[in-house]
Amino acid sequence: MVILIGAISDRMLGNLEMFTNLKRDVAQINLDPLQRGGILTPEARAALVEWGDGYSICDFCGGAMDRIKSPPIENFVHESLPEFLGIDEVRITHGAREGMFAAMHAICQSEDWIVCDSNAHYTTVLAAERAGLKIEFIPSSGEPSFKVSPEGYAKAIERAYEKKGNVTMAVLTYPDGNYGNIVGVKAVSEICHDYGIPLMLNGAYAIGRMPFNARNHGVDIIVGSGHKSMASSGPIGVLGATEDYARTIFRCSSLKKNKEVELLGCTVRGAGLLTMMASFSAVVERVSSWSKEVEKARWFADRMGQLGIELQGDIPHNHDLMFFKAENLYEISRMAKKGRHFLYRDLKDRGICGIKPGLTKQFKLSTYLLGESDLENVLVAFDEIITSYT
Amino acid sequence: MVILIGAISDRMLGNLEMFTNLKRDVAQINLDPLQRGGILTPEARAALVEWGDGYSICDFCGGAMDRIKSPPIENFVHESLPEFLGIDEVRITHGAREGMFAAMHAICQSEDWIVCDSNAHYTTVLAAERAGLKIEFIPSSGEPSFKVSPEGYAKAIERAYEKKGNVTMAVLTYPDGNYGNIVGVKAVSEICHDYGIPLMLNGAYAIGRMPFNARNHGVDIIVGSGHKSMASSGPIGVLGATEDYARTIFRCSSLKKNKEVELLGCTVRGAGLLTMMASFSAVVERVSSWSKEVEKARWFADRMGQLGIELQGDIPHNHDLMFFKAENLYEISRMAKKGRHFLYRDLKDRGICGIKPGLTKQFKLSTYLLGESDLENVLVAFDEIITSYT
Repeated sequence: MVILIGAISDRMLGNLEMFTNLKRDVAQINLDPLQRGGILTPEARAALVEWGDGYSICDFCGGAMDRIKSPPIENFVHESLPEFLGIDEVRITHGAREGMFAAMHAICQSEDWIVCDSNAHYTTVLAAERAGLKIEFIPSSGEPSFKVSPEGYAKAIERAYEKKGNVTMAVLTYPDGNYGNIVGVKAVSEICHDYGIPLMLNGAYAIGRMPFNARNHGVDIIVGSGHKSMASSGPIGVLGATEDYARTIFRCSSLKKNKEVELLGCTVRGAGLLTMMASFSAVVERVSSWSKEVEKARWFADRMGQLGIELQGDIPHNHDLMFFKAENLYEISRMAKKGRHFLYRDLKDRGICGIKPGLTKQFKLSTYLLGESDLENVLVAFDEIITSYT
Repeated sequence: MVILIGAISDRMLGNLEMFTNLKRDVAQINLDPLQRGGILTPEARAALVEWGDGYSICDFCGGAMDRIKSPPIENFVHESLPEFLGIDEVRITHGAREGMFAAMHAICQSEDWIVCDSNAHYTTVLAAERAGLKIEFIPSSGEPSFKVSPEGYAKAIERAYEKKGNVTMAVLTYPDGNYGNIVGVKAVSEICHDYGIPLMLNGAYAIGRMPFNARNHGVDIIVGSGHKSMASSGPIGVLGATEDYARTIFRCSSLKKNKEVELLGCTVRGAGLLTMMASFSAVVERVSSWSKEVEKARWFADRMGQLGIELQGDIPHNHDLMFFKAENLYEISRMAKKGRHFLYRDLKDRGICGIKPGLTKQFKLSTYLLGESDLENVLVAFDEIITSYT
């Protein structure tokens, strides 16, 4: 028998049950690039159950999350992650976007300018806007390859200078989240350093999927996403920086001892961090098999091409995230009963999801960690769907 | 057989196994105030398993997390939470601290001043420092009651004015996290409004434990913590604001349609939010039993007093979070073999944890949601420990 506070309305009471026992309605084969790298390992699933309670990781905290020894967070954050990323200092964040904001907020001053690839994720733009920064974009080559050239960085910096902009950061999305394009980082970082500007890499689709060493590419600041590419329960990310920039980004409070201002003391104070740690062994292993993932993506793209569905972006492609253009599916959508939702529904009927409902003319998908038989099923499904309408 | 990238050192490979299969070492009775309100309900545990994968809640997202209809996040965020908190607009954040920063960053300008109770959590200070704000504190009455008076807010605002400060926000911690003291909010909000200053309430230890209606107390902005007090897997929190302030805090990007700048688009894009939703029914119910929790806390404090362990802060006490002073335990620590760690170890031997290792002279604990027999065991343990050394 529940005795309720007078302020709670009948309508709210009627709603309460709606939020419990919710089941996820997801198909067997999920092609969503956002989700393929975030599927938990069995070890991460076990960690989630073991450490689920709020503040569970704080049982033996001495005042700084990244220095907790039991569980071995200190070792993970201060030894394993810096080596994995190839950078001096790493901290855990709530995600790639929160890491980008922290770095921009710490390093740039309000009204400064950044330069950024035009394929950037929308959160790069939001992080800059939140930090009060202006953006000069490096345009892409447009359809069909959407390439961003390293030289574009020099031109964008020059354009910003012409506008009297104080450029204090460059951002490169690696790969970008639309086309899965890979830009030559080393060339970009050399250009940025010639202008005395640090390069931040948004590696949300790289870190945890493909090998990447920030130091070898001259990257000064790097962010990654646990829920996107490190088999972690989110939101969680990593933020790494070279010693010079780490000093500013991870500066301690002048008022509260040992508390890092940009992180508001601690960030992921819960189970998400333990899932990232639990998956780490598997993540290191899968990164080492990256070339097979690239091969598989290329094979899949070729087969899609035979169905009249054309890969955009880098060709040959270098990432599992791919953007396709399908005039034939678009033509079908114009006459299909279900209209532009036909593709989503027809794929779902065949146990496939992850392409956004309503898209037909162009869409992205990922083949990451999918077996060949699953991908064969996807190809058969596209073939069947196209044939059934023609 | 793992084929590894050359860059990975043997030392790192040796470390990998350290991060999997980690078990939590927590005693049967946990008195940690930080953790008592964050213990998951069975429904939240089920949600964690169901929605554990990264970005799982985004299966049917149209571009704004708080507008997702399946699972029913939109209803939770835009109907249930505003009613529960008694405020116009609510959003999900990564926690109370992140909510405080978002509000300060949106409403105040760098170099502005805020006034804040001196019992405030350290993260209030960090959030202000990160936003470039100066702080004028409202002092407490000191030992033993550590009271903060509403009138102190007027004096602090006046002091800030004398320093030529532009005061743009007042913050009250309700209750504070050291003494569990409750300050009369209505009196504080009236004073702040007389000066034309909004009042932000840090309700990390209130929302989800005790009934609270922001509107009835004249609170303009309110933050709560899911992992601290709403039986959620963290980090997660809520941020509410009246219509006027919501317009500023939750403003949309000028560059990216429908994306809220202060939230960087979306915040808790994972299982944590589903645990908060799954626990919500139980949370609404437990809030209605708050008076019993207060009675239980008072009874426990009385019994501790009989053992020579004296409650500090408000007397009679109005919250489950209590701060105790124990000269007798301190005296024991000076001669005990294990030194100042004797209390932690002797309690742990009796299946009790949650008081910080090394503390004896003064410490805090919580009785929240503990049964009387568990609390009786805690009292017997303290009695036995004191007796065993005297």
